[in-house]
Amino acid sequence: MVVVMSESATEENIQKVISKLTEMNFDVHRSTGVNQTVLGAVGDKRGLDPRMLEVLSDVYKVIQITEPYKLASRTFHPEDTVVQVKDVRVGGDQLVMMAGPCSVEGRDEIKETARIVRQAGAKVLRGGAFKPRTSPYSFQGMGEEGLKYLNEAVAENDMVSVSEVMESSQIPLMIEYVDILQVGARNMQNFSLLRDLGKIRKPVLLKRGMSATIEELLMAAEYIMAGGNFDVILCERGIRTFENYTRNTLDISAIPVVKKLSHLPIIADPSHATGKRDKVAPMARASIAAGADGLLVEVHKNPEQALSDGAQSLYPEQFEKLMQELEIIARAVGRAW
Amino acid sequence: MVVVMSESATEENIQKVISKLTEMNFDVHRSTGVNQTVLGAVGDKRGLDPRMLEVLSDVYKVIQITEPYKLASRTFHPEDTVVQVKDVRVGGDQLVMMAGPCSVEGRDEIKETARIVRQAGAKVLRGGAFKPRTSPYSFQGMGEEGLKYLNEAVAENDMVSVSEVMESSQIPLMIEYVDILQVGARNMQNFSLLRDLGKIRKPVLLKRGMSATIEELLMAAEYIMAGGNFDVILCERGIRTFENYTRNTLDISAIPVVKKLSHLPIIADPSHATGKRDKVAPMARASIAAGADGLLVEVHKNPEQALSDGAQSLYPEQFEKLMQELEIIARAVGRAW
Amino acid sequence: MVVVMSESATEENIQKVISKLTEMNFDVHRSTGVNQTVLGAVGDKRGLDPRMLEVLSDVYKVIQITEPYKLASRTFHPEDTVVQVKDVRVGGDQLVMMAGPCSVEGRDEIKETARIVRQAGAKVLRGGAFKPRTSPYSFQGMGEEGLKYLNEAVAENDMVSVSEVMESSQIPLMIEYVDILQVGARNMQNFSLLRDLGKIRKPVLLKRGMSATIEELLMAAEYIMAGGNFDVILCERGIRTFENYTRNTLDISAIPVVKKLSHLPIIADPSHATGKRDKVAPMARASIAAGADGLLVEVHKNPEQALSDGAQSLYPEQFEKLMQELEIIARAVGRAW
Amino acid sequence: MVVVMSESATEENIQKVISKLTEMNFDVHRSTGVNQTVLGAVGDKRGLDPRMLEVLSDVYKVIQITEPYKLASRTFHPEDTVVQVKDVRVGGDQLVMMAGPCSVEGRDEIKETARIVRQAGAKVLRGGAFKPRTSPYSFQGMGEEGLKYLNEAVAENDMVSVSEVMESSQIPLMIEYVDILQVGARNMQNFSLLRDLGKIRKPVLLKRGMSATIEELLMAAEYIMAGGNFDVILCERGIRTFENYTRNTLDISAIPVVKKLSHLPIIADPSHATGKRDKVAPMARASIAAGADGLLVEVHKNPEQALSDGAQSLYPEQFEKLMQELEIIARAVGRAW
Repeated sequence: MVVVMSESATEENIQKVISKLTEMNFDVHRSTGVNQTVLGAVGDKRGLDPRMLEVLSDVYKVIQITEPYKLASRTFHPEDTVVQVKDVRVGGDQLVMMAGPCSVEGRDEIKETARIVRQAGAKVLRGGAFKPRTSPYSFQGMGEEGLKYLNEAVAENDMVSVSEVMESSQIPLMIEYVDILQVGARNMQNFSLLRDLGKIRKPVLLKRGMSATIEELLMAAEYIMAGGNFDVILCERGIRTFENYTRNTLDISAIPVVKKLSHLPIIADPSHATGKRDKVAPMARASIAAGADGLLVEVHKNPEQALSDGAQSLYPEQFEKLMQELEIIARAVGRAW
Repeated sequence: MVVVMSESATEENIQKVISKLTEMNFDVHRSTGVNQTVLGAVGDKRGLDPRMLEVLSDVYKVIQITEPYKLASRTFHPEDTVVQVKDVRVGGDQLVMMAGPCSVEGRDEIKETARIVRQAGAKVLRGGAFKPRTSPYSFQGMGEEGLKYLNEAVAENDMVSVSEVMESSQIPLMIEYVDILQVGARNMQNFSLLRDLGKIRKPVLLKRGMSATIEELLMAAEYIMAGGNFDVILCERGIRTFENYTRNTLDISAIPVVKKLSHLPIIADPSHATGKRDKVAPMARASIAAGADGLLVEVHKNPEQALSDGAQSLYPEQFEKLMQELEIIARAVGRAW
Repeated sequence: MVVVMSESATEENIQKVISKLTEMNFDVHRSTGVNQTVLGAVGDKRGLDPRMLEVLSDVYKVIQITEPYKLASRTFHPEDTVVQVKDVRVGGDQLVMMAGPCSVEGRDEIKETARIVRQAGAKVLRGGAFKPRTSPYSFQGMGEEGLKYLNEAVAENDMVSVSEVMESSQIPLMIEYVDILQVGARNMQNFSLLRDLGKIRKPVLLKRGMSATIEELLMAAEYIMAGGNFDVILCERGIRTFENYTRNTLDISAIPVVKKLSHLPIIADPSHATGKRDKVAPMARASIAAGADGLLVEVHKNPEQALSDGAQSLYPEQFEKLMQELEIIARAVGRAW
Repeated sequence: MVVVMSESATEENIQKVISKLTEMNFDVHRSTGVNQTVLGAVGDKRGLDPRMLEVLSDVYKVIQITEPYKLASRTFHPEDTVVQVKDVRVGGDQLVMMAGPCSVEGRDEIKETARIVRQAGAKVLRGGAFKPRTSPYSFQGMGEEGLKYLNEAVAENDMVSVSEVMESSQIPLMIEYVDILQVGARNMQNFSLLRDLGKIRKPVLLKRGMSATIEELLMAAEYIMAGGNFDVILCERGIRTFENYTRNTLDISAIPVVKKLSHLPIIADPSHATGKRDKVAPMARASIAAGADGLLVEVHKNPEQALSDGAQSLYPEQFEKLMQELEIIARAVGRAW
């Protein structure tokens, strides 16, 4: 912690800050400059609230000098984490494509979509059974029945599955049927859920909250990892900005930033980010060009009939075309396909 | 629903939209203008995704014409809702002050704080027992023990209590000890929790999410009300903006806006909004001046020793002074004290 | 400047940073902690780009320890600045009300509005002659003719005037006719204009940009003051947020924050912030309750016929009622009326 | 314009809205639904303020059905605009690379940088002579001398130049020396400057404001085009978001969105958007992958000595490597190089 005193700080107030820091078990180094005094406070205090110092008189700024996350940080784990699920490796040399409908809508539907996306090259099948909907009057998902169909579809097509968990009480059911448990953007700071996911031994796909910073995303990952579950896949899915033409704004720069700050793999979800089918392909290409480890894309064999998010689901032939474009870009940025 | 076709729309594409709307069971009214065609679609379709129409060719804009919430709307419930808890009435003529520490930290501490804030005029005692913390390494609350102390403190001081519920599994415990269950900003769109709170018959204090719109706040209230629990108190607690000097930005204009759109009571939380003690009083005064039904204020008998949020907690004497200022402003805006 | 090295920094990289700082003429104090090294760099370097250090290897964070503004800072000028224009004192004990139409629309109109607002207690008459409009097809103001009418109106009613200057070439004309020159939100970082306003000796009312931070607002004031013009009145007029019900979100907490950081007076503009007439009065009351030195309010004798911003203009009788409410609140917060 | 009445609207209030619309010279089509009445208002009223209707009683929403811009809209100009400057065509099949230092810093420096970037494939040389700086104490550019050196550098290397104009009074000088006049993000809504640039016959590179929507960017282009200057090149340069790790957030989805709404070419500036050298290459690749017509990239032969923005300037060898990567991606998305 570094405490910067204001230029007009009195010696008395500087001493009060030093006392407070000492009381908090910090070692204090004082640098007295021509204009200003700076206090370096050394000690292991992750989780301390810097505002306790900011409210003292004549304090200009308090700066935390340790990253608030540790397990998620590249500083302590320089090599990339690869999350392995059966024969799928997320974060390795090869890009991983996750595709499928927003919601599981029926046994036949999910099986057919699985075949389509598998053939085009996707190894992970997505499909929601519990749906977080803004309106209580919207379709809320098929529940356990949906999970069963999803499970059958991956079994028949040699894939692995990813599906959203909305609350802790669903975890046992999810574990039984699903390979990767997804935490949705609105639950990124549902700390109870994160803590409970730290206790399981299945990978978690953690979506960035709609107005979360990258540091907050890494802190959410830290919650899961602090429980002993290190298989966390991060997902950039668009942030809220003033631009309303797209549903959200895919923050593609988060990809290289996460790669620098953390060892965890990061994928992008261009479907939820843009909310519109014709914007999915350009943003998918851009994400791979920027270094993403894979994508999560909505594909529906008949988007016009989808029970949720049909407007942003690709037609099967659009997905196939996209996969061909991505292959070229993947090679251009040195990734295997 | 109103579908506005683009100025260059072909007749064929207009017909496709009409067919789609008819298929969705809407009655369609067509207005053909000099430059543009507008299609009015009449039918009861709360929960429909307008993007299903936006992706059709030559559609310029789709506008939902029904408010997405119904139970929370003033349109269908013109008179103000008053939430009654024992002899405390939130949303009535009289302003309601809720005060206390961020977290319950001990039996003696909470009892003493209760006496202090009760004497200054607060009828509701706040105090968290389950704390949502950004870091897994921070103090997470006293749990059930904290609830017991809170309960004793309100009993001894003829108050009612408000405390945060973080997940559905805590609801039975909360109901036993607490009068008003609070949903924190990070859980405003935890739809599982909201749905479960709709099943209980105790008031819920619902905090606005950090980057939620007012419409989203009212939709969250709708989730609770759709389950049959109509005793919802809304709380403006600051939104995330680019301004970092304050922790968040208290959106005071949300107060008159909610008053217009909804019949539910709304209070303000100047402590979490500003994050700094010296900004609490001006923002508390401003909230009352703008028409809030009450306030939620953090008070700690010794903020420098607080286990959480000490930096934004008022000293007892600051709270007393604030209460006197508020009384004058309350009368200036025609409210009882 | 404080440079925090990352926890895994090599000694070689620490030395490189020290060399760089030395080369930049800083004195360097090194604090070597258990986990991390912190370098305090002392020297007078306002205007230096901290990113030059951030890009060096193993640098975790760079923190500027001097406020980037000096003339606008309360640190070097502890007592409040009072901007005097004839017998009007902005920033003193007494609150100052500025009112009038968005645009000057004719000689009779502005004179009648002047009489109305003067009688209700406003001492400053507002009225735009050059209008920054989002659309090139909207009414752009009456120009010099409008300034003449404004001037006549203040002369007849013993008031002073405030009107917006849009570009440097208009300054000579503005100086001739207007008492306070207003810089609009969209021009807050029009540095050429700010520099030229630093050369004149008339007060400037500087509006905060729509997504500017308070620090950026103070830096804009610094531009004007660096030229020798110290008579700057700041104005909070609403920032852009995700809430669309109101035009902008009046950041009322900016008022106490500016009061702490700077000695300059600050007023609020509830009309532009909310964009809707029925929200103006609550936000005006809230601003005064939070400590504003005055208000800028749009009043029109017939808002439905206004050429611009009629929707947010108060009817004369609404303004009179508001002034009575404000008087009570002013006294509650210890201000003269 | 479509006016949606609230569900509880009285017939009297509906009639008042109809009268108001008629008075405004609109033809009104009324659709009376089961729950709600919708009024379609037909007439050519670009520039009308919808809030004049919103403030009427029982009005729920007012929707503008015409795009507020016309000349910039693809609706009326379906084919892509190609801006030609000498033999450089921006918006055509071939991608256009613009590169160079943030500021012109000397004759030799700009000439050497020109040679370097020209050899790597850039056809347009960037270099600022008038610099908009947040601090009045920072380097403000070389002025006319800088323009001369820039001009010599392009002449010697068979390039064209782009440089920022900060105010109308600089236009004559800029026209003399510079091929493309750039409007910076902070001046995107400096309507006086935009209007004056509409009168010249040289291309304008218009940067998106830091918190501007795409519609506002197109409205700013409309200002220039309304004056008769149709050679406008749009530039996405990052928007302000809550993420502070990068200087701004490059909104790459703006590229396909602008391509749909407008016929104007759009390029991206990954240097200003990210503010950090190591993020420039990934974002440059992503922009091209998403369909940008070119890039504006800062390159400096010795970034550590740059007078401004050195932290985000590429080293010559980084730029050369980037150009090779971009060539592959360009071909993957079907663009010539």
